[in-house]
Amino acid sequence: MTESLFIAGDWGTTNLRLYLCQQKPSQPLTILETQVGPGVSQINGDFEQIFFDLAGDWLEEYGLMPVILSGMVGSNIGWQTAPYIDCPASAEQIVRGRTAFQARDIEFSIISGLKTLNPLGTPDLMRGEELQLLGWMRTATGPEADMAQLVVLPGTHNKWALVKGGKIETFVTALTGELYALLQNHSVLIGNTESADFSADIFLQGVKVATTLEPGQLLQALFATRSRQVTGELSELYASSYLSGLLIGSDVVGSLALMEKRMDGISSVDLIGDSALSHCYQLALESVGVKAELRDATQIALSGYQAVYEALQPSLHNS
Amino acid sequence: MTESLFIAGDWGTTNLRLYLCQQKPSQPLTILETQVGPGVSQINGDFEQIFFDLAGDWLEEYGLMPVILSGMVGSNIGWQTAPYIDCPASAEQIVRGRTAFQARDIEFSIISGLKTLNPLGTPDLMRGEELQLLGWMRTATGPEADMAQLVVLPGTHNKWALVKGGKIETFVTALTGELYALLQNHSVLIGNTESADFSADIFLQGVKVATTLEPGQLLQALFATRSRQVTGELSELYASSYLSGLLIGSDVVGSLALMEKRMDGISSVDLIGDSALSHCYQLALESVGVKAELRDATQIALSGYQAVYEALQPSLHNS
Repeated sequence: MTESLFIAGDWGTTNLRLYLCQQKPSQPLTILETQVGPGVSQINGDFEQIFFDLAGDWLEEYGLMPVILSGMVGSNIGWQTAPYIDCPASAEQIVRGRTAFQARDIEFSIISGLKTLNPLGTPDLMRGEELQLLGWMRTATGPEADMAQLVVLPGTHNKWALVKGGKIETFVTALTGELYALLQNHSVLIGNTESADFSADIFLQGVKVATTLEPGQLLQALFATRSRQVTGELSELYASSYLSGLLIGSDVVGSLALMEKRMDGISSVDLIGDSALSHCYQLALESVGVKAELRDATQIALSGYQAVYEALQPSLHNS
Repeated sequence: MTESLFIAGDWGTTNLRLYLCQQKPSQPLTILETQVGPGVSQINGDFEQIFFDLAGDWLEEYGLMPVILSGMVGSNIGWQTAPYIDCPASAEQIVRGRTAFQARDIEFSIISGLKTLNPLGTPDLMRGEELQLLGWMRTATGPEADMAQLVVLPGTHNKWALVKGGKIETFVTALTGELYALLQNHSVLIGNTESADFSADIFLQGVKVATTLEPGQLLQALFATRSRQVTGELSELYASSYLSGLLIGSDVVGSLALMEKRMDGISSVDLIGDSALSHCYQLALESVGVKAELRDATQIALSGYQAVYEALQPSLHNS
């Protein structure tokens, strides 16, 4: 067993990304090599074979080492079903809640998802983002760690997580990213996208409209994305920017209001996700007076794997 | 020229429906025959050929007669571009605003669309539904005709039209139907739909949630359609009913609020559209205390064509 090495894997619906990580005492984590492979939805249950095909050379060269996986690999269409842990959940509870098993003498850990009753009063779920939150909590130190903080994870299913006193208190998911992709690719709202360009001004027009809507008026505002093009008010080139502004603006307004019920005002949030998308959320948040800091998503994720790896060490020593 | 006969045609994006109509004095309009053909999006500009292929036998048997067409046939991808008329628009203005042309000695009329600045403050458009509204206005008589009334035309792009004193004052369009179809067929919210069934109870659960949302919270409520299934709260069989309730409920809440700004309270609306869909709107409207009457969409449309046909008569006599 090579104690300073482990394999971390983000095994989502459409992609697998494996990292060969080295953890030396008092030093930041280093990625030695990476491998990419097929996502959970593209595999016929042959997880073990695919993993060892991709990681085989590493194991041969460096010897046995633990593997920590996150994402849909722990869902009911994954390798092993890792149950959802209830919020509030501390970093320690998430680490402890992992699903451990052995394959070809390797110790595998799949991180559990989280579940909560969100501030809307409905059940809510995450699987994959808890790894980022684990990493985020590891980096939050000092007095701030005890204060309620809002962490936003922009993506297909955008998550707003409330973290307080080292625990993920609750979170809410918005369909923003998936809905944008559907409307962008399949609706009458967006025509030819070949020459489309992003305009921050037009994006912010959409955000502004979203902030003025009363309940139930997103569907009407969405249709205006088309009629504004027909009447010449909005260029076809920037229709996507406007649509994105409407949806992200709506998400921001609605989610901040939900989370404010659980916090004493929200003056700043941290953003963890794809940088272009996070930048859009930053624009929208700052336009409503909330400071937003973009965090490095890969670094945060690695901190998450590191947290699990360090917790594994005693059990590895014992085994 | 056979004066009591004319051809009415609803030529939309995906379908063409031609009616051979007979109008005898003091009698209701009769449909003698119907023909169906391809929609505007399925034709390579060959409108004349397709029309005469379908209607040729009628013209041969009964002689020349006027043709009145509505729908996307008047758009910029149609046969002739019939411009949008500004609201407020009276029945007379709509009839007068038709685009007239001749082909093979036949007098064609394509009905114009309508445009407005809707109560949301954005430009809005309709093309096709104005024919229904023309028919609806023809059937509205007595003192009611002068009162502000709300007419809802459920469909892919649901329209809420405010009619007052014989004029279509304004209208607003919601993306409800198109968004439902996209989410139903392409999103993570709905799985296997083969055994799906409609449940009015579950639909009304969705409506109720929609009526309690604050601004910007539809995206979060939509995601709950999935998480409620994963946690077992909502059966996969009825997920579509719930989704439909959320969307139609949201449309109803938001559109009623928009229209209330222009009317002295809304106690009842008329619904013109597909009967299953109209029934859903009726359930949602009645759950928020608004009486909703389902009108026969085909009869209403025929009244609309009749209004145009009668107005054509003097010019036909003169020619």
